[in-house]
Amino acid sequence: MMSISGTTRLYVVLGDPVTQVQSPGLLNPLFAKLDVDAVLVPVHAPAPDLERIVAGLQAIANLDGIFVTVPHKVAAAGLADRRSPMVEITGSANALRREPDGRWYAENFDGTGFVAGLVEAGHDPQARTVFLAGAGGAGSAIAAALLAAGAERLAVCDPDSAKLAALRARLDAHWPGRTSVSAEPDTAGAGIVVNATPLGLRPDDPLPFRPDELAPRSVVADIVMKPRETRLLREAAALGHRVHYGIHMLEGQLNAYRAFFGLG
Amino acid sequence: MMSISGTTRLYVVLGDPVTQVQSPGLLNPLFAKLDVDAVLVPVHAPAPDLERIVAGLQAIANLDGIFVTVPHKVAAAGLADRRSPMVEITGSANALRREPDGRWYAENFDGTGFVAGLVEAGHDPQARTVFLAGAGGAGSAIAAALLAAGAERLAVCDPDSAKLAALRARLDAHWPGRTSVSAEPDTAGAGIVVNATPLGLRPDDPLPFRPDELAPRSVVADIVMKPRETRLLREAAALGHRVHYGIHMLEGQLNAYRAFFGLG
Repeated sequence: MMSISGTTRLYVVLGDPVTQVQSPGLLNPLFAKLDVDAVLVPVHAPAPDLERIVAGLQAIANLDGIFVTVPHKVAAAGLADRRSPMVEITGSANALRREPDGRWYAENFDGTGFVAGLVEAGHDPQARTVFLAGAGGAGSAIAAALLAAGAERLAVCDPDSAKLAALRARLDAHWPGRTSVSAEPDTAGAGIVVNATPLGLRPDDPLPFRPDELAPRSVVADIVMKPRETRLLREAAALGHRVHYGIHMLEGQLNAYRAFFGLG
Repeated sequence: MMSISGTTRLYVVLGDPVTQVQSPGLLNPLFAKLDVDAVLVPVHAPAPDLERIVAGLQAIANLDGIFVTVPHKVAAAGLADRRSPMVEITGSANALRREPDGRWYAENFDGTGFVAGLVEAGHDPQARTVFLAGAGGAGSAIAAALLAAGAERLAVCDPDSAKLAALRARLDAHWPGRTSVSAEPDTAGAGIVVNATPLGLRPDDPLPFRPDELAPRSVVADIVMKPRETRLLREAAALGHRVHYGIHMLEGQLNAYRAFFGLG
């Protein structure tokens, strides 16, 4: 049972909206299990106020960490004093911690957490061809982590061609020639397909790509966590594909967070 | 059992230090009892960063209230858009709430909470002579609340003569001719005596006034909450006076907070 007192250390998760975040339900039980006197609370940060809110949070002396979710991951990378290589490559951050010298360090666990969850479920991307919808913050991080984990070829689609070209350039700088990009979904040859767009959060969203065009028994992964069963995953399952839920990405990140924040 | 999710509303208590605050232990069980999906967390706000921290907190869309403790109560009055009459009189605030129009309203419950606790314990100040040590934020609020509750005469002492004169002028404007002030304690004729200074927080603090000079069976009240039994209260009890603990002030505020923040 969580008990909050004057000595409790703070962690926040920033988003807009924030009602859908799952991290308090995962991190707070972890704090309790590790006997860490800390609490993670949701912070609804409207985009125009993000800088002001983060500046205020970073000045709070008992606040040790800031988790970041949509739509603030790209902006968050710019609100830290130092950035990890993964943040430099992806241009986005999902965790900021206070360093011993008082400065803030940004890391991005979305991609590595997603890949850890994928491997855990038996879907190792090594030497595979992977299709990814979405070149935003989460998509960029997942793209980099898939290539870092040895995916042979990666096809990324996004309607924003400038964003797509910039991501490809950053990926090519580290993993030359393994990434192709397109405005429309191109799932040909992919055994693992991933939705890293927000499509599926709302019941009337269109599908990010067509599950009926995939090779039989493809792995269909979604990063949308709420609803757990998106329309994409429901239709993919009905077609006999193997589905991989959004929550696995967060579960895959728990050990990484624990190490990053030095929790027990 | 408290459960924090993305829908949880936030309240904070600001202080420097903040480890001693008792409000999370009182408010969080109240939220749970009322089935209110909210949490109160401590925020350690160093004085030089107070404005930046409050500006950030006020921009958080799911943050509904800010409690304020030492040394920020006077500054907090200036960080709201509107102030209650009690805040105008005392020049300090201990609770800020977001109004329906998005502006912030400051209130001060220290005095009314203290008086509610006093009345609850059977020590109604109406028509009584009361002595009060301390003309700071808490002392000012208690002075105003005692006069508002009908205390016939109020003697306030504080070594800071400018602060004392300013408080007397503000009190006289509302309750003319009922307040006397002095640099040294003057407990003559008082049946209720109150310590509203921080003296007693540390074991080697001097006494704020001498309990052995009081009339028999006086009511001796202390606003210091930690330790529960200050040297003042211990010596007063040994002399046969009736003692009133600091925690009663906070208990007396709970119902007021509940109404102020519209909790169930």
